[in-house]
Amino acid sequence: MTSKFYLYKGLGRKAENGRPWIYIDEINEYDGDYENGDIVEVYNFMNQFIGKGYINDRSKITIRIMTRDINEEIDENFFKKRFKAAYDYRKKVIDTSSCRFVFGEADFLPGLTIDKFEDYFVIQISTLGMDKYRDLIVKILVEEYGAKGVYERSDLATREIEGLEQRKGFLTEAFDTNVQIIENGVKYLVDLENGQKTGFFLDQKENRAAIHRICKDADVLDCFTHTGSFALNAGIAGAKSVLGIDVSQHAVDCATRNSELNGLSDVVKFECHNAFNVLSDWSKEGKQFDVVILDPPAFTKSKNTIKGALRGYKEINLRGLKMVKSGGYFVTCSCSHYFSEELMKKTIAESASDARRTLRQVEFRTQSADHPILWSSDESYYLKFFVFQVV
Amino acid sequence: MTSKFYLYKGLGRKAENGRPWIYIDEINEYDGDYENGDIVEVYNFMNQFIGKGYINDRSKITIRIMTRDINEEIDENFFKKRFKAAYDYRKKVIDTSSCRFVFGEADFLPGLTIDKFEDYFVIQISTLGMDKYRDLIVKILVEEYGAKGVYERSDLATREIEGLEQRKGFLTEAFDTNVQIIENGVKYLVDLENGQKTGFFLDQKENRAAIHRICKDADVLDCFTHTGSFALNAGIAGAKSVLGIDVSQHAVDCATRNSELNGLSDVVKFECHNAFNVLSDWSKEGKQFDVVILDPPAFTKSKNTIKGALRGYKEINLRGLKMVKSGGYFVTCSCSHYFSEELMKKTIAESASDARRTLRQVEFRTQSADHPILWSSDESYYLKFFVFQVV
Repeated sequence: MTSKFYLYKGLGRKAENGRPWIYIDEINEYDGDYENGDIVEVYNFMNQFIGKGYINDRSKITIRIMTRDINEEIDENFFKKRFKAAYDYRKKVIDTSSCRFVFGEADFLPGLTIDKFEDYFVIQISTLGMDKYRDLIVKILVEEYGAKGVYERSDLATREIEGLEQRKGFLTEAFDTNVQIIENGVKYLVDLENGQKTGFFLDQKENRAAIHRICKDADVLDCFTHTGSFALNAGIAGAKSVLGIDVSQHAVDCATRNSELNGLSDVVKFECHNAFNVLSDWSKEGKQFDVVILDPPAFTKSKNTIKGALRGYKEINLRGLKMVKSGGYFVTCSCSHYFSEELMKKTIAESASDARRTLRQVEFRTQSADHPILWSSDESYYLKFFVFQVV
Repeated sequence: MTSKFYLYKGLGRKAENGRPWIYIDEINEYDGDYENGDIVEVYNFMNQFIGKGYINDRSKITIRIMTRDINEEIDENFFKKRFKAAYDYRKKVIDTSSCRFVFGEADFLPGLTIDKFEDYFVIQISTLGMDKYRDLIVKILVEEYGAKGVYERSDLATREIEGLEQRKGFLTEAFDTNVQIIENGVKYLVDLENGQKTGFFLDQKENRAAIHRICKDADVLDCFTHTGSFALNAGIAGAKSVLGIDVSQHAVDCATRNSELNGLSDVVKFECHNAFNVLSDWSKEGKQFDVVILDPPAFTKSKNTIKGALRGYKEINLRGLKMVKSGGYFVTCSCSHYFSEELMKKTIAESASDARRTLRQVEFRTQSADHPILWSSDESYYLKFFVFQVV
């Protein structure tokens, strides 16, 4: 029999309102035996059903809700329905040639991320409860979505909290893990096996398109360029010159290869630099650009390190702003959930004040629509993206 | 000699950081005579120059800064430079066939709004200081921007605070004030003389385009449709059926005429209803739509009426949400500066909780790029626009 978990009075409200996580502190008592990874039922203190999900008592997030329907079984049919809803949504809102196919909690599949790169899929499983469904997930991707290959990138340190080992490798027969994709008219060779995360950051797709209008005929500097995506979008939009910088020589090599792939080598060039140092040096030399783009990695991945991260964001925005010509454009993002929209606005305003520059906001965006923000799951909102004119 | 105004110690910081308004409470003393409407100089307590702008001591916002350059004269050349910067910016970021040409403070021209509808311009002057430059403004629009006609829509109650009468009429030879424009591929007949504000709400241009992807093949309800703009965008995007409602029969007539103009009469229809009542009635009948759009007028235009406005926003969002089919889309906006992004998010979350619906945010946007948000002028940020999937 499915075991039943009862929440404390006063602590069930958020879960009832759609939050997919049940924390250990919210659980008052339970009936029946369970093993970690089992599907269990969750009730409020009045014995009213909230949802069903998988349990792992090693994690502070003890239960993750999979369904709000007591009669819905968590089986192959369940995953088929969830995948269909996820893909139908994406077909409506975005180019699905390459896209995030499943975005965990926000697609009501906690612990599961699936990215689609043309006909190849990369899956990432972060929890014990989801780990049990690996074979079933792969089966559906192959049978229903024509996957020519599926690769697992569960090389996540956080799996250890769940008592799981990191995993990486083919889930179908081996295939060439360098896959060519096209996004906003730009070609990329994506390295599914060794690229960061699942190989490519799909979440900036619409934001990359958003810079086209400000990059035509401009001299552009793209900092933290990684595989060169913003730089290449600037190039394809008709920039006069583009310089992408990254602290990793491997990233610079990838980006350079992508520039060649797009026939943009004459316009879009890459160099290996630490952005913090080089912006400071160039600033002293009086070097400036028409457009400066900052897409730094998450300086904080937890609440505890916000303070240090704040200093980092402040510093890089200050240095970036100084590099923008008067009347030029400044593009700045943060992909850290914990560096909230509010904190980010405050930090940018301080940087502008210190740099003695005036900001006019052209556009504000979040992550692309294939990474929907589930309002009942705060953590699903993480990417903030601003375009300013600097006067 | 230009009179000089000195701010209190500790009260000059915001103005120094770019805020274009000097409040009466911030002014410590002044040297020299002035008349209301004159250009005066502003200094901090340490006698450091902050900016030059026009004064009106009848208003709590006593001085509005026009320039930060002590040597810049406020003359024809000044307006030419400002207009050029404003138009160059818009040519970069937006379709300028019809657009906001000058957005007051955010274009460093406080008290002046100019909208361009094809070759016709509508100007709105809200302050005494700007009122003096009317002829000069018209001259530049005609000579430098090929204006075939300029119409004034300074029929603003707030002009009375400035000691000015409301004004409305031709500033060039008379012309037909029904002007046809095209936006996102949709044609509109804009009534410059009697339409709301300057005739058409240009600020939703990009947001109207943003609904295209969710409206294809959908049954769409557009509430507070006004001249039918969201409804017509849904129609042009391939909606199965669109119903636009508005409490004003005049608006319904305009919208119906626009539907005919676009050959969409079979798909996009309009009816005269009070949204608050009719949504409640239809909800009881179990009527639902694939897409529901709410673009209400500002329920509050000041800090003092937020409480009542909150109830209005809560109620209309609650009723709107109930009308969305499961898996359908909900589009909701607010154009009130005082109903902040944060308050709006809170209100929508409460409405969703009451309606027992789960929200997935597809997109968040603000006003279009031709209404840039000057960060040092809070009031320039007013339009919030959300697209949700409702599950």
